Amino acid sequence: MRTFRVELGPRSHPVHVGAGILDRLGELAVEAGIKPTRAALISDTNVAPLFANPVQTALRKSGFEVTTIEIAAGESSKNLEMLGAVYDRMIDTELDRNSVVFGLGGGVVGDLAAFAAATFMRGIAMVQVPTTIVGQVDSALGGKTAVNHRRGKNLIGAFSQPRMILADVATLKTLRDREFREGLAEVIKYGVIMDAPMIADLERDLDAILARDLNTLEGVVERSLRHKAYVVENDEREGGLRKILNFGHTVGHAIEASAGYGNYLHGEAVAIGMLAALRLSHLQAGLPTSDVQRVTTLIARAGLPFEMPRKWNSVDFVAALRLDKKRIEDGVEFVLVDALGHAFTKKLSFEAITSALG
Amino acid sequence: MRTFRVELGPRSHPVHVGAGILDRLGELAVEAGIKPTRAALISDTNVAPLFANPVQTALRKSGFEVTTIEIAAGESSKNLEMLGAVYDRMIDTELDRNSVVFGLGGGVVGDLAAFAAATFMRGIAMVQVPTTIVGQVDSALGGKTAVNHRRGKNLIGAFSQPRMILADVATLKTLRDREFREGLAEVIKYGVIMDAPMIADLERDLDAILARDLNTLEGVVERSLRHKAYVVENDEREGGLRKILNFGHTVGHAIEASAGYGNYLHGEAVAIGMLAALRLSHLQAGLPTSDVQRVTTLIARAGLPFEMPRKWNSVDFVAALRLDKKRIEDGVEFVLVDALGHAFTKKLSFEAITSALG
Repeated sequence: MRTFRVELGPRSHPVHVGAGILDRLGELAVEAGIKPTRAALISDTNVAPLFANPVQTALRKSGFEVTTIEIAAGESSKNLEMLGAVYDRMIDTELDRNSVVFGLGGGVVGDLAAFAAATFMRGIAMVQVPTTIVGQVDSALGGKTAVNHRRGKNLIGAFSQPRMILADVATLKTLRDREFREGLAEVIKYGVIMDAPMIADLERDLDAILARDLNTLEGVVERSLRHKAYVVENDEREGGLRKILNFGHTVGHAIEASAGYGNYLHGEAVAIGMLAALRLSHLQAGLPTSDVQRVTTLIARAGLPFEMPRKWNSVDFVAALRLDKKRIEDGVEFVLVDALGHAFTKKLSFEAITSALG
Repeated sequence: MRTFRVELGPRSHPVHVGAGILDRLGELAVEAGIKPTRAALISDTNVAPLFANPVQTALRKSGFEVTTIEIAAGESSKNLEMLGAVYDRMIDTELDRNSVVFGLGGGVVGDLAAFAAATFMRGIAMVQVPTTIVGQVDSALGGKTAVNHRRGKNLIGAFSQPRMILADVATLKTLRDREFREGLAEVIKYGVIMDAPMIADLERDLDAILARDLNTLEGVVERSLRHKAYVVENDEREGGLRKILNFGHTVGHAIEASAGYGNYLHGEAVAIGMLAALRLSHLQAGLPTSDVQRVTTLIARAGLPFEMPRKWNSVDFVAALRLDKKRIEDGVEFVLVDALGHAFTKKLSFEAITSALG
């Protein structure tokens, strides 16, 4: 097990990455200063059958009085209606201000459970237990919590840090292939925006990663999380630096919104968004075509989409782009790279974005 | 106009109290560092017809591009469904991360508008423009934002500070008598828990207050807000000191919840809750009966309920008490005073509370 701390003053918290560490969840939570009390384990219909029982056992062993709240798996659960249903269950369970929420699942469960915890009785403790790559390398860390609105992803949300993150890479063994591969988009992103040598290491290790070798995964998840932690530590509320994490996400979100949330997995939409961002980086910031090609090849090897979808430039797509949270007047603060490992933001007009993607 | 700052580090913000200052809203907002940009003015069907036009004019004069979002007046609007409708309107208005929400109205509008702002795109700027006494002396200051759940008041919410508070006491002239009087419960509360001389001043000034003399009101609102600011500055997240502000609210909330939110105005329920808390303060902390009587007389003079309601001790009431956010295991952290002006909390069992109220 590898452990480090995210340093955020009073909101600092530990991160544990390891293989087969789910059964230490209760003990590590207590060690992180969480009092063993009433708890809700929020999970979904995919993950709960696999891990809710062992996790409940681990929590009870350490004195938590835990009830499981199961939501339907999938992005379509991440909305205000499901949030209302989760509140109802939290109240039925008689959670109080000292209670704690454990979010066990992927990004959807993590975002929804964390937003529910952040807004229940004006905020109760929350522990992230991500079981997908997207969750483990990205969404569990950083305190971004949210639900979707039919007009856009993550439009409703709050900043609220978890009290602990426990990423058990052994859970990644249970993912379907498509789900596993989508997470690699976020891993590749860290290399592109912050860590050029990581691109080379990913090229070297991709087969071991795809074979889900636990040692390799532990290293990759930890390296990704440390990058994310560095960014969040230096810009918790996304005033500046943190915006670089949106690399690939502006177009990615618009594709998800315009295609309907169900057609692409988040990581797949981000992969397409990264291709768009790389193309724009070439046009607007002189990123060499050889680097565009190199990352495109890595994305393709990871089994992710490596072409823009047909009909991407629909009225829907442009409307979705206009709803982006990073919108500023008639454009978007867009993340570009002028070299692998070096990202920055630049205001691009909607026209500049769409005309480059033709 | 009287101005002071609530000192909360990066969340510090100015408070303006005066008569006829609504038309300075835009100018003062800009002075507080808010960029004139797209804005939503959230108000209700009682207040908007009176003040939305002059406020919009004041905002436009300073460069804000403002749209009014009107909700139905009353506590029953303070729920997740109305919140969802407000989000929809905020999205229709194309608010972005740099936009600002102005909440114009009483506690319901303030709490709902502030929660909507706190959770829209993970938090946008918010200005409180309270137009009731409860709003002006209590709910606008302190960053408590919330909506109700059918199982209890303010169960869903977040801490999020406004960027400015503007309390125009001239708006209090438009309140119906019952609405005006309910706010005095919160004013009396500050005297009871923090400021014994204020009780004497209220006894002296009550007639001028009830006649809505603007100079007297400006002084009373400012004195109340400064007390609230002192408490919030020293305990923003209600870890300790701030709990004393719940004086009268534990029983008050339970009465509101068990009687249905509509039967008592908030301040009326708090008045009853204060009577209960004074009786418990006598029994549990030796508060002299002469002080209990003195405050009871002041509450009666203010035209507030000064007797426990019949049938208060219903199954509903006890169930509502058990849902209190301040619940700790089998009791509640209850606010008592051992002398006028000196409050503290003590854990009381549900039995101790209900048996004293018989």
